[in-house]
Amino acid sequence: MKKGQLLYEGKAKRLYATEDPSILFVEYKDSATAFNGEKKEEIAGKGVLNNRITTLLFEKLQENGIASHFVKRLSDHEQLVRKVDIIPIELVVRNTAAGSLAQRLGLEEGTPLKRPIVEFYYKNDDLGDPHISTEHIDVLGIATAEEVQALYEGGLKVNDVLRPIFEEVGVELIDFKLEFGRDQDGNVLLADEISPDTCRLWDAKTKQKLDKDVFRRNLGSLTESYEIILTRLGGQ
Amino acid sequence: MKKGQLLYEGKAKRLYATEDPSILFVEYKDSATAFNGEKKEEIAGKGVLNNRITTLLFEKLQENGIASHFVKRLSDHEQLVRKVDIIPIELVVRNTAAGSLAQRLGLEEGTPLKRPIVEFYYKNDDLGDPHISTEHIDVLGIATAEEVQALYEGGLKVNDVLRPIFEEVGVELIDFKLEFGRDQDGNVLLADEISPDTCRLWDAKTKQKLDKDVFRRNLGSLTESYEIILTRLGGQ
Repeated sequence: MKKGQLLYEGKAKRLYATEDPSILFVEYKDSATAFNGEKKEEIAGKGVLNNRITTLLFEKLQENGIASHFVKRLSDHEQLVRKVDIIPIELVVRNTAAGSLAQRLGLEEGTPLKRPIVEFYYKNDDLGDPHISTEHIDVLGIATAEEVQALYEGGLKVNDVLRPIFEEVGVELIDFKLEFGRDQDGNVLLADEISPDTCRLWDAKTKQKLDKDVFRRNLGSLTESYEIILTRLGGQ
Repeated sequence: MKKGQLLYEGKAKRLYATEDPSILFVEYKDSATAFNGEKKEEIAGKGVLNNRITTLLFEKLQENGIASHFVKRLSDHEQLVRKVDIIPIELVVRNTAAGSLAQRLGLEEGTPLKRPIVEFYYKNDDLGDPHISTEHIDVLGIATAEEVQALYEGGLKVNDVLRPIFEEVGVELIDFKLEFGRDQDGNVLLADEISPDTCRLWDAKTKQKLDKDVFRRNLGSLTESYEIILTRLGGQ
């Protein structure tokens, strides 16, 4: 595959065309951003780690029957994915109260939820990715009711697969963000990445944070934390 | 009925016990507040107007088969209501984008929604009454799934009754907030008030705001606007 034209540059990744119109080239950047881009830093090694962790997790999901846009990892910073149109909804699946949920509901961080919940956010930087309901989605016309149902069920299914995988290696999957897209046939596919940038991951014993909160809250070395996750998952 | 002990003082009303434990005395205050109490003013005549308008609307709802806590108006500032335990969920029903919805979704104020929608907010001043989903309600344990369904359907039913009543007198019902409570038998009853404090009401032709936005946004005389609403509804 030849790396073609740059199609899109996001906060953490660049997307390039390939000679196959249904396949894209993804390049993981070393940029760390938080608070809708207000906090920003270059962190050498971050891209490699997220590329490896995402690869590992998308492979585990595929083994468990969850299709995604992932095709294969090419190099330290690069992977191939199927081209999808991203649905502008960020799905957050939560097992334990943390971050914005703890703030919103006045719960202490670390409070287990009685069941996993799924939240929807409108993927719109100008609006600050607001929390929305299925009725807002309907009014905005950004996804059909069937797609919302697929997202909801997909989110819970990903959780059912990932949670025990992390549990086995002494990591609590607190919450995570997913994005989905439509392929050229209109199928809804899991997309984007799954990494410590998009998950909250705590050491099960010490409750040490091993995710982007290390960067958001200045808790130490981000790459050291991400390396712990990669190593525990059996990657290198 | 004798006005007993003061049980609760809110931003706009005081609740007193009566000799009947199932009945409360409500006193409508002349206070106007906005932005979670940050903006505050005494406005002579406001309490009388809201008491009259609420009475009128609760009576119309009862004629249309929608039960509420309302018993009867006693005087300029006072009414009797059935005692309920307020469910800490504020329901917002919207026909047209305005206020926080316009901001949240990036819609221009006045954009008609393709269908009425119902939003839930967690009634909690310390948290700033955050927007919540039915899953948040479940996790918080503040209402059962059946109650949430009753609230949702109740909200849409109130809209179906009130919208044409306002339409007939040249007023657009843009959106409104409802609160519900449980009576001593656990029945869910519409409660609180329905007034220009809790509704967005626009003149259908001129789009003049005839509700609390006049106070929130310093658009003129609040009581003059509320009087227009009362008069158009046939009250005095």
